[in-house]
Amino acid sequence: MIAVLKSGTTETQIENLSSWIRLQGLEVHLSRGSLHTVVGLVGDTSKIDAELLESLDIVESVKRISEPFKSANRKFHPDDSIISVGNTSVGGNIFAVMAGPCSVESEEQVMSIAHAVKAAGATMLRGGAFKPRTSPYDFQGLKADGIELLIEAKKETGLPIVTEIMNANHLPLFEEVDVIQVGARNMQNFELLKELGRTDKPILLKRGLANTLKELLMSAEYIMAGGNENVILCERGVRTFETYTRNTLDLSAVPLLHELSHLPVIVDPSHATGVARLVKPMALAAAACGANGLMIEVHNDPAHALCDGAQSLTPDAFADVTAAVRQVLSALGGIKQ
Amino acid sequence: MIAVLKSGTTETQIENLSSWIRLQGLEVHLSRGSLHTVVGLVGDTSKIDAELLESLDIVESVKRISEPFKSANRKFHPDDSIISVGNTSVGGNIFAVMAGPCSVESEEQVMSIAHAVKAAGATMLRGGAFKPRTSPYDFQGLKADGIELLIEAKKETGLPIVTEIMNANHLPLFEEVDVIQVGARNMQNFELLKELGRTDKPILLKRGLANTLKELLMSAEYIMAGGNENVILCERGVRTFETYTRNTLDLSAVPLLHELSHLPVIVDPSHATGVARLVKPMALAAAACGANGLMIEVHNDPAHALCDGAQSLTPDAFADVTAAVRQVLSALGGIKQ
Amino acid sequence: MIAVLKSGTTETQIENLSSWIRLQGLEVHLSRGSLHTVVGLVGDTSKIDAELLESLDIVESVKRISEPFKSANRKFHPDDSIISVGNTSVGGNIFAVMAGPCSVESEEQVMSIAHAVKAAGATMLRGGAFKPRTSPYDFQGLKADGIELLIEAKKETGLPIVTEIMNANHLPLFEEVDVIQVGARNMQNFELLKELGRTDKPILLKRGLANTLKELLMSAEYIMAGGNENVILCERGVRTFETYTRNTLDLSAVPLLHELSHLPVIVDPSHATGVARLVKPMALAAAACGANGLMIEVHNDPAHALCDGAQSLTPDAFADVTAAVRQVLSALGGIKQ
Amino acid sequence: MIAVLKSGTTETQIENLSSWIRLQGLEVHLSRGSLHTVVGLVGDTSKIDAELLESLDIVESVKRISEPFKSANRKFHPDDSIISVGNTSVGGNIFAVMAGPCSVESEEQVMSIAHAVKAAGATMLRGGAFKPRTSPYDFQGLKADGIELLIEAKKETGLPIVTEIMNANHLPLFEEVDVIQVGARNMQNFELLKELGRTDKPILLKRGLANTLKELLMSAEYIMAGGNENVILCERGVRTFETYTRNTLDLSAVPLLHELSHLPVIVDPSHATGVARLVKPMALAAAACGANGLMIEVHNDPAHALCDGAQSLTPDAFADVTAAVRQVLSALGGIKQ
Repeated sequence: MIAVLKSGTTETQIENLSSWIRLQGLEVHLSRGSLHTVVGLVGDTSKIDAELLESLDIVESVKRISEPFKSANRKFHPDDSIISVGNTSVGGNIFAVMAGPCSVESEEQVMSIAHAVKAAGATMLRGGAFKPRTSPYDFQGLKADGIELLIEAKKETGLPIVTEIMNANHLPLFEEVDVIQVGARNMQNFELLKELGRTDKPILLKRGLANTLKELLMSAEYIMAGGNENVILCERGVRTFETYTRNTLDLSAVPLLHELSHLPVIVDPSHATGVARLVKPMALAAAACGANGLMIEVHNDPAHALCDGAQSLTPDAFADVTAAVRQVLSALGGIKQ
Repeated sequence: MIAVLKSGTTETQIENLSSWIRLQGLEVHLSRGSLHTVVGLVGDTSKIDAELLESLDIVESVKRISEPFKSANRKFHPDDSIISVGNTSVGGNIFAVMAGPCSVESEEQVMSIAHAVKAAGATMLRGGAFKPRTSPYDFQGLKADGIELLIEAKKETGLPIVTEIMNANHLPLFEEVDVIQVGARNMQNFELLKELGRTDKPILLKRGLANTLKELLMSAEYIMAGGNENVILCERGVRTFETYTRNTLDLSAVPLLHELSHLPVIVDPSHATGVARLVKPMALAAAACGANGLMIEVHNDPAHALCDGAQSLTPDAFADVTAAVRQVLSALGGIKQ
Repeated sequence: MIAVLKSGTTETQIENLSSWIRLQGLEVHLSRGSLHTVVGLVGDTSKIDAELLESLDIVESVKRISEPFKSANRKFHPDDSIISVGNTSVGGNIFAVMAGPCSVESEEQVMSIAHAVKAAGATMLRGGAFKPRTSPYDFQGLKADGIELLIEAKKETGLPIVTEIMNANHLPLFEEVDVIQVGARNMQNFELLKELGRTDKPILLKRGLANTLKELLMSAEYIMAGGNENVILCERGVRTFETYTRNTLDLSAVPLLHELSHLPVIVDPSHATGVARLVKPMALAAAACGANGLMIEVHNDPAHALCDGAQSLTPDAFADVTAAVRQVLSALGGIKQ
Repeated sequence: MIAVLKSGTTETQIENLSSWIRLQGLEVHLSRGSLHTVVGLVGDTSKIDAELLESLDIVESVKRISEPFKSANRKFHPDDSIISVGNTSVGGNIFAVMAGPCSVESEEQVMSIAHAVKAAGATMLRGGAFKPRTSPYDFQGLKADGIELLIEAKKETGLPIVTEIMNANHLPLFEEVDVIQVGARNMQNFELLKELGRTDKPILLKRGLANTLKELLMSAEYIMAGGNENVILCERGVRTFETYTRNTLDLSAVPLLHELSHLPVIVDPSHATGVARLVKPMALAAAACGANGLMIEVHNDPAHALCDGAQSLTPDAFADVTAAVRQVLSALGGIKQ
């Protein structure tokens, strides 16, 4: 860690700061320029609070040299992590395809979609039972009943299930859930992350709308620090000024996360763009740049297919996506589906 | 609500959509252009899911005409809300000044700061007991003990206390807390908001780092829809590309929130900028543009005033801020402190 | 175009507004809700100034139904545009690969890179002669001499050349340049765009750092309105809060621009990420989601390969990228390289 | 300047890099941690290209310690700059108020507004003659005729005039213009900045929509490096995800720019928000946080006051703003108007 001191800092102040740093068990390296002195903090700086240091009157800025994440850090775990999920896995040479409806609405809906996505090559079934909605007046999901329906679909199709948790108190309902999803809005709900760290379930951690990759990895670290190393990272778009898409999908996150961490990385093109027509090109792009899988919304309930205007991706359109993704994966080699 | 249909939409599709809209209890107005037909949905559209509508194949875009928030909406509650807090209040002609340490660290620290900020004109004492930290390895606060220390300081100084909640399960610890703060990272922790809606405590709701004003008001709506109308909004900066400040303080939020809502609006210049030197000018600007109060970090623990580099705002610097703020308020009239 | 009027607007005000709209040659459709009246402006609204309308006291908001771009609009030109460039082209079934050094530095450098990128499958040579630099103290390019060196390289290799213009007064120097690039910082330098609209050269128009896709297309429209329809669009990243990459590459721009416009779209992964290691995965992703080509920086000057730390992409690494891109293109079919 | 080397960098590579740094006339300080070596470059690093250094294979990241701007830097010019403009000035204890129409439309309009804003306390007249418009089909301004009308208004009222330049070739038209404005879209039109550096006119430089404060100061540096030190900085909002306002006004820029630079800083609340109702609160906030002046749009052409919906700020509303601003300035002392 490097602290740049303001011009005008006195020798006494520098000595006092140096003593304090040594008290934290670190070495001090000083480099004096004509205007600024630079203080190097050498040793295990992961316990040092950079914000506290930066708030000192004599400090102009602070820069971390080592990343503050340890368990998630590839430097200390060079091999890719492979997360086992039921009869399949995420990471390594498996390309995970999690597909299903945005919200679980009825037994008929879930079963029909589950069979359809399995036929099209999905490796897991996703579906929302607890739904985070911007408005308290919007449909909040079937909750416990929704999870029951997912478990039935799992029994019938054999597909492991992925669904979102919004409250650690609901954990008992998730016993037969295979992968617990933490949504973008809860990426920094640290109380929830800590509770999930005490389970041994695979956790699918979505990047927050305005969170850096470092913050995403620090949130993974919250889960891993509790003892649960089964974390799957998910890029799902960040918020920008562009209005044609709901969010801006940041695909450079995929190779960067692979470089920084050993955890598998999947991409959710449905929520990132909010536009069904963009799911296929973005799914192909995600596969091409090294994602370990995809999460895709598929909808097939005729009762809700309003007014001839079929909603989101149909099972047929989804099958078209998975076929094209397989072609890209096969062209690039290395990952099987 | 307005839905713009894609060019090429057939008459049958328009009729089907119209029937569905009428089934929701709304009237339909059609306006046909050369390329596009525009469908007006007239009536109470707050229950209509705009995203669902936008996801239809025949729909190019959707625009809400009425805001989806009701309880927080000034249109239905033209008078300013005044939130009573102990012997003081937020809103109306009271300018609230919430001041205190970032983290509660010790009895001596809290007491000394509490007395100092009271002398300088603070109307409430703030202090962190549960601390949301990006890293699991950073100090997470004194928790229940921190709340105890705040309550002691309240007894001694008479200042109502404000502190952050991170988990609805901790609510029993907050019984003697006067204002419960929801931090920026939890602005869309809807499960927490719902629980707070079942209490009658004043809630200080901070804007998320990448949340629009509409989303902030929808989160207020979550609390109010549960029956708790005592919501105080807080602008504390949004995330941008600028790196000199931790966040970019959006002061236009103050007059805009006053226009959209009857709820009081305060500003937190300390967290918005992350730079103690910027607290005074931003506090003055907030007062000048109509904020109902300020939340300011004040630190005075000599044991932590590392290396002669005094941390954040000292009580003296804080007194200088409040004096200048009073001058601005008095020049503009209308709000007393 | 739709204008939503504020609640409280009087009948006389609505009639006055309607008269004014009819004077502009448009029809008026009124839709009255309980709180708001919505005014539809039907006809050719491309000449209507939406900002002027929005600034009226009685207007709450304005929404364009038709895009304000005409010449660039796919609705009026359903077929893909193919831009001829020397002996090759951009668009259609040609995948363009523009490669070369960031800055032209010497004859030896340009020649050696030109031969290397040609061998690796580049279809054009790119190189900076006029360099936009944030600092006036940074190297500003070889200017006219740099263009001379590019022309020599073109003569020797047959590769058409692409280079950036920063000042319309320099146009005489660009006579033998095949594609004139407009950089991100000049995307809304409307005076420059107008001058380029008077030429018949292919123009490579880069998206600005904080510009929407609609603004990019409006800038293309400036060139096309002048008579020059040879515009190539280029996505090169937008500015966000993320700091691991220089910019955030927005690949959803590729399919969206294809939907909105008939103009070809290429991607510049080098400038978007600022990280040589990310060029290959992002190039593959761009090819997979339908880009019509790539612009890639290649550097091979041993005199500048400082301290064993080879800079940016070497010709060998570039050849590896183009080989992998060919595999993706061939797997997806349709585009040959 | 600090360069953090990647783990695994060899001693030979470090030595080669060190030799190269010394060749640039700088000293090298090495600080070796367990994982990373940090290289300090000590001396005048303003000529070092940080991007080049960062692109080296062995370099993980680079951090500037000294700002790369010199002429604009307060460290080397501790006293505030005061820019003389006709019979008034910007900076020091003068609070500049530049007011007038968005576009110059007619003699009658300019004269009537000029007299009105002078009566209300404006110190300069602003008006657009060359207008940068997103669409080529929108009104582009009266151009040379517009400048003529401004000069007439100056003769009649004695108010110095401010107007925007879009093309250095138009400079001869600006001889009697007192302050030449560079718009946000041209903030990094370096060719234009260089030309303006060769004049001795005061330049009003607006911050670009997605430009950092450092980039704004580097653009000021372009003008000053050419010999023209008469630069006025202008904050006018940056682009964010918020949609209620056109841009997000970043008022923390005001005290930060004062800290970093000796140049005066004004604020344009009209363009920042795009909402006339927000001009007054944001003008007051700007005055309260230390701005040296304001630029405000005032409109008073009855022929364009469409349909009873008076456009933007009227002269009366402007007079109300300036009166309130005077109260804030007087309360805070130090600046007279």
